[in-house]
Amino acid sequence: MTRPTAPPARRRNRYELLGLDPAANPVLEAIAAHASCRAYRPDPLPEGTVERLAVAAQSAPTSSNLQAYSIVVVQDPARKRRLYELCGEQPMILDAPLFLVFCPDLRRLEYVCRRQGHRFGAGSLDMFLVATVDAALAAQNAALAAEAMGLGTCMVGAIRERPREVIDLLALPPGVYALVGLCVGYPAARGEVKPRLPLSAVLHRETYSDRHLDTAVAEYDRLMAAAGIYGGRQVPAPGGQVRPEQASYGWAEHTARRLAAARRRELRSVLEAHGWCLT
Amino acid sequence: MTRPTAPPARRRNRYELLGLDPAANPVLEAIAAHASCRAYRPDPLPEGTVERLAVAAQSAPTSSNLQAYSIVVVQDPARKRRLYELCGEQPMILDAPLFLVFCPDLRRLEYVCRRQGHRFGAGSLDMFLVATVDAALAAQNAALAAEAMGLGTCMVGAIRERPREVIDLLALPPGVYALVGLCVGYPAARGEVKPRLPLSAVLHRETYSDRHLDTAVAEYDRLMAAAGIYGGRQVPAPGGQVRPEQASYGWAEHTARRLAAARRRELRSVLEAHGWCLT
Repeated sequence: MTRPTAPPARRRNRYELLGLDPAANPVLEAIAAHASCRAYRPDPLPEGTVERLAVAAQSAPTSSNLQAYSIVVVQDPARKRRLYELCGEQPMILDAPLFLVFCPDLRRLEYVCRRQGHRFGAGSLDMFLVATVDAALAAQNAALAAEAMGLGTCMVGAIRERPREVIDLLALPPGVYALVGLCVGYPAARGEVKPRLPLSAVLHRETYSDRHLDTAVAEYDRLMAAAGIYGGRQVPAPGGQVRPEQASYGWAEHTARRLAAARRRELRSVLEAHGWCLT
Repeated sequence: MTRPTAPPARRRNRYELLGLDPAANPVLEAIAAHASCRAYRPDPLPEGTVERLAVAAQSAPTSSNLQAYSIVVVQDPARKRRLYELCGEQPMILDAPLFLVFCPDLRRLEYVCRRQGHRFGAGSLDMFLVATVDAALAAQNAALAAEAMGLGTCMVGAIRERPREVIDLLALPPGVYALVGLCVGYPAARGEVKPRLPLSAVLHRETYSDRHLDTAVAEYDRLMAAAGIYGGRQVPAPGGQVRPEQASYGWAEHTARRLAAARRRELRSVLEAHGWCLT
């Protein structure tokens, strides 16, 4: 796994952001150094990259060893261009030489039932989750493996923006849908490791508790506003409300504005028409 | 990160199973060495373990930085015993000193909307997936981090077996549900690294293809049957069919029998009654 150019100075990771010592564990350091990469060089990837990432994906846990997912490997520039159009025109999809699409897959399991002379009767919301979680765990392993190989990655949930068109483009049969995409390539620029919410907002001891929510959100909001992360990326206020663009526009306001309306409303009907039982 | 006893000889990993060279990359090696651990020693975990795992979890990508998940940390023996009962009585839940429950969480986002004076209008199947994928990616990072620290892990999808009771036990508010559990502890025995399906069944080039499905499933079926993995663990044939327990009982038959009937049928109604929009 050589890189065309020398790596930049060691990146910060989230343990350091929190003043924690990752105890010189290279795996923890790699995990905590993750930052999404949104600009790629066109350099081709080392031979065997796809297979290495696929083995990493397959090494994730899978419910009852069902392995209820598939990975569609997209490298053809014309197909990547179409995906770019279908995923909200994020240029990184054009730039990254490799785009992996992680697909929950019941088709293979239905085939196995037919092969053995049994009826597939497992369709349910839980089975949908089994396959979805399998695909997500596999995607995370592939992403981390790519980053450990010196590559940049970015997960693309916008692959669900136009689900019917993606099904057609990738010839996904009934029982298979596109959950997340993953851009992979040599970074043209390194993303910054973003702070996350204080652990007090995310970790709950024994039972769920809101006790620290106010404080944690206020703290994180100030941190993110001060970091200038939203400069030039402000979401318009919903419903045409006239709201002054306060200096305090931070994570809370950015997030709240994003959540004013539901998106991807056709996903359910597309999935139900495509072999998924969601009941 | 010290371990009470010396680690066993280096474990095989999936790259080696496939005759691939992981190129001496410690992260790829750790990923590919994953095997679920189903027996734990009672030894307490090193101080700071929960925080280290939580930072790893938070380092996973999250859709639009929404961080739509929470982690409930269960260590109390009485609560672990109740979870053991609710998750199909898998003894590893009793044995592992730490049980993490990864919960997709819209409650925090609804709070943020209220805080900012906006309406939360984002409920949809896609939002359910956003939170579910966020939680799954976080869980995978935590699991890998634990294994890199010399601990064993096992993901527990059976946390969805009795969703209403788990909501009550963990005091999960509306908009929060338990997606997967994660046992963490020092292994009493190492699991074997299980072979996965041939890549030809899982990887698709440019578009989805069944071309290699027959061959790949037949090959994997033979491999798994020969490995003796199903000895003493055969699933009864569905519908009371009398079927001889062939020597060829392998992955295909085991899998097909598991998929004869839907499980966890109440999940949808529980989630819909608990603040989740699935349309």
